[in-house]
Amino acid sequence: MHYTISQIAQSLGLTAEGKADLSVRGAAEPATAAPDQLALAMQPSYAETLPKGAARAAMLWEGADWQALGLESAILAPRPRYALSGLTSLFDPGPEIAPGIHPFADVHPSAEIGADAAIGAFVQIGPRASIGARARIASHVSVAEDAKIGSDALLYSGVRIGARVTIGDRFTAQPNAVIGGDGFSFVTPEKGAVEAVRTTLGDAQGLRQQAYARIHSLGAVKIGDDVEVGANACIDRGTVADTVIGRGTKIDNLVQVGHNVRVGADCLLCGQVGIAGSTQLGDRCVLGGQVGVTDHLVLGNDVMAGAGTLLRTNQPDGRVMLGNPAMPMQASIDSYKALRRLPRLMRDIADLRTRVPKSDNHD
Amino acid sequence: MHYTISQIAQSLGLTAEGKADLSVRGAAEPATAAPDQLALAMQPSYAETLPKGAARAAMLWEGADWQALGLESAILAPRPRYALSGLTSLFDPGPEIAPGIHPFADVHPSAEIGADAAIGAFVQIGPRASIGARARIASHVSVAEDAKIGSDALLYSGVRIGARVTIGDRFTAQPNAVIGGDGFSFVTPEKGAVEAVRTTLGDAQGLRQQAYARIHSLGAVKIGDDVEVGANACIDRGTVADTVIGRGTKIDNLVQVGHNVRVGADCLLCGQVGIAGSTQLGDRCVLGGQVGVTDHLVLGNDVMAGAGTLLRTNQPDGRVMLGNPAMPMQASIDSYKALRRLPRLMRDIADLRTRVPKSDNHD
Amino acid sequence: MHYTISQIAQSLGLTAEGKADLSVRGAAEPATAAPDQLALAMQPSYAETLPKGAARAAMLWEGADWQALGLESAILAPRPRYALSGLTSLFDPGPEIAPGIHPFADVHPSAEIGADAAIGAFVQIGPRASIGARARIASHVSVAEDAKIGSDALLYSGVRIGARVTIGDRFTAQPNAVIGGDGFSFVTPEKGAVEAVRTTLGDAQGLRQQAYARIHSLGAVKIGDDVEVGANACIDRGTVADTVIGRGTKIDNLVQVGHNVRVGADCLLCGQVGIAGSTQLGDRCVLGGQVGVTDHLVLGNDVMAGAGTLLRTNQPDGRVMLGNPAMPMQASIDSYKALRRLPRLMRDIADLRTRVPKSDNHD
Repeated sequence: MHYTISQIAQSLGLTAEGKADLSVRGAAEPATAAPDQLALAMQPSYAETLPKGAARAAMLWEGADWQALGLESAILAPRPRYALSGLTSLFDPGPEIAPGIHPFADVHPSAEIGADAAIGAFVQIGPRASIGARARIASHVSVAEDAKIGSDALLYSGVRIGARVTIGDRFTAQPNAVIGGDGFSFVTPEKGAVEAVRTTLGDAQGLRQQAYARIHSLGAVKIGDDVEVGANACIDRGTVADTVIGRGTKIDNLVQVGHNVRVGADCLLCGQVGIAGSTQLGDRCVLGGQVGVTDHLVLGNDVMAGAGTLLRTNQPDGRVMLGNPAMPMQASIDSYKALRRLPRLMRDIADLRTRVPKSDNHD
Repeated sequence: MHYTISQIAQSLGLTAEGKADLSVRGAAEPATAAPDQLALAMQPSYAETLPKGAARAAMLWEGADWQALGLESAILAPRPRYALSGLTSLFDPGPEIAPGIHPFADVHPSAEIGADAAIGAFVQIGPRASIGARARIASHVSVAEDAKIGSDALLYSGVRIGARVTIGDRFTAQPNAVIGGDGFSFVTPEKGAVEAVRTTLGDAQGLRQQAYARIHSLGAVKIGDDVEVGANACIDRGTVADTVIGRGTKIDNLVQVGHNVRVGADCLLCGQVGIAGSTQLGDRCVLGGQVGVTDHLVLGNDVMAGAGTLLRTNQPDGRVMLGNPAMPMQASIDSYKALRRLPRLMRDIADLRTRVPKSDNHD
Repeated sequence: MHYTISQIAQSLGLTAEGKADLSVRGAAEPATAAPDQLALAMQPSYAETLPKGAARAAMLWEGADWQALGLESAILAPRPRYALSGLTSLFDPGPEIAPGIHPFADVHPSAEIGADAAIGAFVQIGPRASIGARARIASHVSVAEDAKIGSDALLYSGVRIGARVTIGDRFTAQPNAVIGGDGFSFVTPEKGAVEAVRTTLGDAQGLRQQAYARIHSLGAVKIGDDVEVGANACIDRGTVADTVIGRGTKIDNLVQVGHNVRVGADCLLCGQVGIAGSTQLGDRCVLGGQVGVTDHLVLGNDVMAGAGTLLRTNQPDGRVMLGNPAMPMQASIDSYKALRRLPRLMRDIADLRTRVPKSDNHD
């Protein structure tokens, strides 16, 4: 895959500087770039390492003096990370899956497979499942009965799509992601200790649990267009209605989305986030790594939570939270700074108490 | 799958009100229920949305005035969530796995498969493995050598059962669950930094780790009857004896159960819980989402921990804990409320100190 | 698999005491050991339970009086856990994978498979992939195009190795581990709310996210010799350069290693650890269960973090951290002890304030 600097610039809506017909076979870090690789030096600090490599062309920040850097050609990017998106898309070969249906795949006769699909070895597509045009399905994927997936899907190896799950166009799932496991929903015949503790906040002595009965998940999962789900992530089915993931939302590895959860559009759920059952997220929420959200909450639009935050209460639009348990970000930072000084504070107070006369208990 | 209201009520041990021979094909939320669906409106707030849908029959709370709600038939449930268990079981079609052994399955000749089993495509059953009657095993499952699974198992796609694992009856495993990976157990030839820090609680300067050698997991995993394990969850093998999961315990997605752990009966381990090696849980423990339990602890019966709690110490029977690090629930709530007010408190104390005379250092 | 006590002692570099030609078929806990099993009683408290079992030989601590314990033979281990490593290695039968390539495997003609490999059912090896000598690859593994794995690999069922990943010798991956999923890297066309909040620490009102574009992962993953990766763990590809895991590092179940991360040699990452993108770890770091490390950090050599710690800042060599957010271990313990007493402290201060005269606001 070779492109000229001119071709690359054009695909990014940018301008090629200098020798625009110079051809490169890929991108590299400045210090290790070969002469036929485009160096990525979108900050001055990266550009300093250009002399260690052999790049003749680079992608630089807006206003960079590319000639002074000894380059023959350059692309100046006003928003470097966005340009990086276009550039990496250009050079990504994508997974190598042979066109058509692999002879070792098991596609049910009643399943519908769109035009120009590539389906790998040991893939199983169940009864009445439907997969859109141009799907790329790597080895060992299973798509259960009556699942519907839109066009241009990319499913990596070992992805599990459960029965009756519906997914929009341009869906990507990383290896071993599970869409449509049963919700974690169990109930005891009589009121049990969990319910009592939720009321009293006290200890559970004297109560006795009984054997749990399953509440089955009759709902499925409904996913909008342009969604991505990470490796080993899990999205559970709903109990009666579907669990919902909105258009454009991106879900990282090892994330847990519980049953009946509704996630809005264009959210980012980072690695190991957990969202408990029946919680709702608005649009454009961003949850950092390992964030937990307890069940039956309502988070508004544009809610953000820093890594490791535990949200136990509803959040209004635009709220930025931090900590376990969570506080608004600045309050959390202040409180934890204070916590660090707390042991000394306690000594100060003990000292103060010795210097202040006891209050008169006879009054 | 159609049932009359009378049939449904009978299967739940309840009474059908009104037109008991009305037939429904499934359950739905009140606002979206079709005329041939049973609306689930077990709280008055849900019942208010009945007019938005077209339900003719509903499941309601005990004492509800179903006629005033405009319904033709109803089932009144004294414990609605328990009734929901029976109802969803009735309408759950279960996974569609053809009876018998799929031609693309690889079942070792020495394996024993019980009567009326359904084994899907690309399943591998290893030497001398044994699987009980009426097993339903979806695609891509592997059951390694000498593993034993009881009757009525339901294994979803991609489940891994390791060698010599033994499992009771009515076992369910969600997609890509792993039972019987090797324990995370390594040792250095000489005493290393980890062990030193456990003793001193100080920094580790001056110590140098050596290469780790593996302690192999000769034990397996032993699971009682009526256990369920979630998607992408992991239960590791024991070192010498088996890791043990007690009867009736339910384990959610992405849970980690370390080597040599012993979990009692009827416990609930919610999503992303982690239990480190050699820790023991009693019966009926409930750990909320993302709870962590460190190694070699003993938790009694009926211990509960709220979401995001980190347990670093043993817990007596019935203790309810919260927070990282954990405190008894009410103490945790009080402490974190105080933490929020701590920055202001510090200003108060600084002010107090200016108003109190210094203690006389000459004494 | 039978060994004499003498053979076992020799393989551990230790001495057999007493009847050295006594033969055992395995190891067991003292209380349950059969006469032909070696009891593991490396601490006096374990030795007390020997009479409950029927062991004739045991592995004991250095200086133990084996004859007084009624044994016929013994091995005294100066470092018992290290001896346990050798012993369990001796008795571990390893997974049962038939030699050669299973007829139901799909190995691309251009792939290179080393001598004496054992490749199980439903394994897929992609174009130009290379796998070293004596590999043991269990069922359902996929190795994508151009991946290179060294000699003596052990890949359990369902492991996913992505395209162009390179791995050293003696690599072990537990079931369903994913090496080489795409990094979680997305960007909006214009500056969005996340970037604004990182600057202001305030709420995000008034800002609006746009649809995310993917930054593709052109890099792969590069893993040194003697690395192990746990069940359902994930290591993501780098954006331009590779994500790197150093020699001898051990990674537990459900761990997330983000894109561009560089982990040094001989690190231990315990269950459910998460390391966000572009962070670097030195050598011999030890992260306890559920530890989180945010993105773009630099941790030195020999850094340790206790279970449940959240690291949000760089750490120098040898630092031992604890808590969310993290503090040096002793400071964390002191602060959280103080936090527990904080509600009472607040009452003390309120009392103090009533006893100290108000400062004169007229001055």
